[in-house]
Amino acid sequence: MAKEVTKRAENYSQWYNDLALKADLAEQSAVRGCMVIKPYGYAIWEKMQSILDRKFKETGHQNAYFPLFIPKSFFSREAEHVAGFAKECAVVTHHRLKNDPDGKGVVVDPEAKLEEELIVRPTSETIIWSTYKNWITSWRDLPILCNQWANVVRWEMRTRLFLRTAEFLWQEGHTAHATSEEAQKEAETMVGVYADFARNTMALPVIVGHKSPNERFAGALDTLTIEAMMQDGKALQAGTSHFLGQNFAKSFDVQFTNKEGKQEYVWATSWGVSTRLMGALIMAHGDDNGLVLPPALAPIQVVMVPIYRGEEERNAVLDKMADVKKALEALGHSVKIDDRDTLRPGFKFAEWELKGVPVRLAMGARDLQAGSVEVARRDTLTKETMPLEGIAEHIHTLLDDIQQNIYNKALAFRDANVEKCDSWDEFKEKIQTGKFLLCHWDGTTETEQAIKDATKATIRCIPVDSYVCEEEGVDIYSGKPSHRRVVFAISY
Amino acid sequence: MAKEVTKRAENYSQWYNDLALKADLAEQSAVRGCMVIKPYGYAIWEKMQSILDRKFKETGHQNAYFPLFIPKSFFSREAEHVAGFAKECAVVTHHRLKNDPDGKGVVVDPEAKLEEELIVRPTSETIIWSTYKNWITSWRDLPILCNQWANVVRWEMRTRLFLRTAEFLWQEGHTAHATSEEAQKEAETMVGVYADFARNTMALPVIVGHKSPNERFAGALDTLTIEAMMQDGKALQAGTSHFLGQNFAKSFDVQFTNKEGKQEYVWATSWGVSTRLMGALIMAHGDDNGLVLPPALAPIQVVMVPIYRGEEERNAVLDKMADVKKALEALGHSVKIDDRDTLRPGFKFAEWELKGVPVRLAMGARDLQAGSVEVARRDTLTKETMPLEGIAEHIHTLLDDIQQNIYNKALAFRDANVEKCDSWDEFKEKIQTGKFLLCHWDGTTETEQAIKDATKATIRCIPVDSYVCEEEGVDIYSGKPSHRRVVFAISY
Repeated sequence: MAKEVTKRAENYSQWYNDLALKADLAEQSAVRGCMVIKPYGYAIWEKMQSILDRKFKETGHQNAYFPLFIPKSFFSREAEHVAGFAKECAVVTHHRLKNDPDGKGVVVDPEAKLEEELIVRPTSETIIWSTYKNWITSWRDLPILCNQWANVVRWEMRTRLFLRTAEFLWQEGHTAHATSEEAQKEAETMVGVYADFARNTMALPVIVGHKSPNERFAGALDTLTIEAMMQDGKALQAGTSHFLGQNFAKSFDVQFTNKEGKQEYVWATSWGVSTRLMGALIMAHGDDNGLVLPPALAPIQVVMVPIYRGEEERNAVLDKMADVKKALEALGHSVKIDDRDTLRPGFKFAEWELKGVPVRLAMGARDLQAGSVEVARRDTLTKETMPLEGIAEHIHTLLDDIQQNIYNKALAFRDANVEKCDSWDEFKEKIQTGKFLLCHWDGTTETEQAIKDATKATIRCIPVDSYVCEEEGVDIYSGKPSHRRVVFAISY
Repeated sequence: MAKEVTKRAENYSQWYNDLALKADLAEQSAVRGCMVIKPYGYAIWEKMQSILDRKFKETGHQNAYFPLFIPKSFFSREAEHVAGFAKECAVVTHHRLKNDPDGKGVVVDPEAKLEEELIVRPTSETIIWSTYKNWITSWRDLPILCNQWANVVRWEMRTRLFLRTAEFLWQEGHTAHATSEEAQKEAETMVGVYADFARNTMALPVIVGHKSPNERFAGALDTLTIEAMMQDGKALQAGTSHFLGQNFAKSFDVQFTNKEGKQEYVWATSWGVSTRLMGALIMAHGDDNGLVLPPALAPIQVVMVPIYRGEEERNAVLDKMADVKKALEALGHSVKIDDRDTLRPGFKFAEWELKGVPVRLAMGARDLQAGSVEVARRDTLTKETMPLEGIAEHIHTLLDDIQQNIYNKALAFRDANVEKCDSWDEFKEKIQTGKFLLCHWDGTTETEQAIKDATKATIRCIPVDSYVCEEEGVDIYSGKPSHRRVVFAISY
């Protein structure tokens, strides 16, 4: 029997866990809150990395690597920053173990206490700006456009695979600029790169916008975000890009001589996406049969399952499949022939459905005679018998259709669940049913906090591309004047 | 003025540091023993990663990711393993900071002490084998062929950029097999992959061999190594591949049901190379002018420096250079036009020499008229005037020649510094002058240790491909019978 997956309608949260676990994406490790990313899950993450990395390089960025550890004193220099992260820091205090004098194990050697504790990076602004100080003297040294692929640690008490883990993988861009305008433009460029990646690679419709002050990154003057709707109507913040002003430059005394020969503090941005995107991928597209992977990210885009009785049929079918595989690979696609002898075709069908492979081809002796093949689409769960002649080109086109269809489906779902709302009573009820509500907001943190306390809903963003709604009105909670609607939702 | 580099003959160690720093490969960070890998250095590491990763996948391996932290109790389960690493462990003991009641900074929150300390991974055998226990039940689950690209931490008191740092980047392969033979074959295959990479990509001649028991990885039954000679005649261990027997399977109780239905412990290997390879690259090929990069790893393979007076000449030269760049890129090469206006050509020449760019093209108005270009090779420091016609194809071939020449040069240097030695007095003297000495060894750890105590020299390997010397003789130190020569050297 294939592995059973909980249905979304029964228990959405369990469904999510089932997909992550049973599709072999990840599992909890023996270390509290830390996950193991399994080969199939990691292959998806590698595809994400490779496409994002190319986009970063195309926009002029270079990769570098900065230390895992941050001295506690550095970490404390930017006040808001340390306040934002202090409660979730893993702290290294010793650098040696020794034999337990009372037993056979090992204990921490009290004589190997560090003079200054080291924080395992939860994000790298402080260590990077302490480094940039050495790299920047003049306007000629600017801009610096660096990115780092790294692991980070934020101690979490309640963790969920990919969505919230103590350790996660991410990239963090850290740029340094001569002017505020240039830094702000960089932050916008990078949220644009993320939005493009989400939409065109992940098939994930996202709303781009500014965070409210309350939801900004600790130490930022402005945070841009891409917000996605999951199938339960909750919001998932999928990537952020921060304009940090001169906060970190001032904390680490990073100044440059401008063209007029005057000393100025440097302007900064930082931006990141993480393995959390894997969670978005699962929840945006999966169905009750398992994962649904957009072809652009599927480690296996086409799986072929042979159907046969006896060695002769098997060989004939596998030979033909090898031809089709070769033709598909020549068109740039990744293909797997599932020739395992110990499993029945029906089991294999279910397994590859669970793993979200976009296209499945099944072929038996009768198909060979008829010159046909059965083509099953994962996104629509439809099957069609197609001529073998020209099958590679057909699938090449089909994969594009699937990519587009997965996006369209997610977009239609989201659009059906975004509503304007102007009544507080209505808001309180509707926000619990999985909606993004476009509401007037008076711009104050007090109102935002009161709404959050009453409903758990937060302002996901003040939209800048889709759902922009600049119109006069009154705040849904306070009744005070408002000049635009913002997106409220309950979030992951 | 270009940056000054210490000459090798003056101070080899300072020369190494100068190259690492002044060629913008890396620098020390504010965190003791941790380095910052700068964009130019990281670009070389990325090329190494990409080529190795392809080789790993071609040999059937998949990437995955395991936690950064290892519970202390796991770490202790394999006795030799913990003994090997206990003295260099970074230990996480707390998970929160809080405001300092006496000041404005932050302090470790004593109430957030972990129940069990976590070790920042120095290597991942223990956490991975605790995971494999869940993945393996039957022979059908084997082999498991995983690799991980990760950062690891081994606390070092005396650090050197790339060669010995508290944190470094590496890959670690961890495989699980049904039989001892298969695992041993895997360990051999992977040391072969490393040797091939070292020779053909890094242009680094290496000696492949077995480590003596004393020099084995902590917990291994056999360690295979690739050993390279640096220009001071010291050995650098550039990669290792370990046959771990059933040690970790037994420590973590990982058994499988074999085809006969019986329970057996699983057989293991692990293998890794690290950013230490960057140190090998610097020291094997660099000269008194700076880095010499093999074309296969050079982030910029060809740099073009325009020579001009006035805007008109500048435009004409840059236009022609753009054509040449396009033609070279079409052949798969990475090219940079250094069009900086504020620097003189001589300065640029020295800078790109320092950074080891394999080929430099210089072109002025007179060259344009003559239809020629000046081609400078970094490896030989020779210049030649060549016709512009067909220049891309010429350079395409030239880059291959350079790759081969760098290898040949390093090979000739090594071969000139490997000697048979049969006298202990001669040994003591010669080993200090930067030689690999092929000597008879009686096979005992006592003798190996006595030689190390007397001279600092260790057995680098018992060779299996080059310098294999199976002949009868007597141990150079003890005078006891010996059946083969082994490689002794002083090492990094």
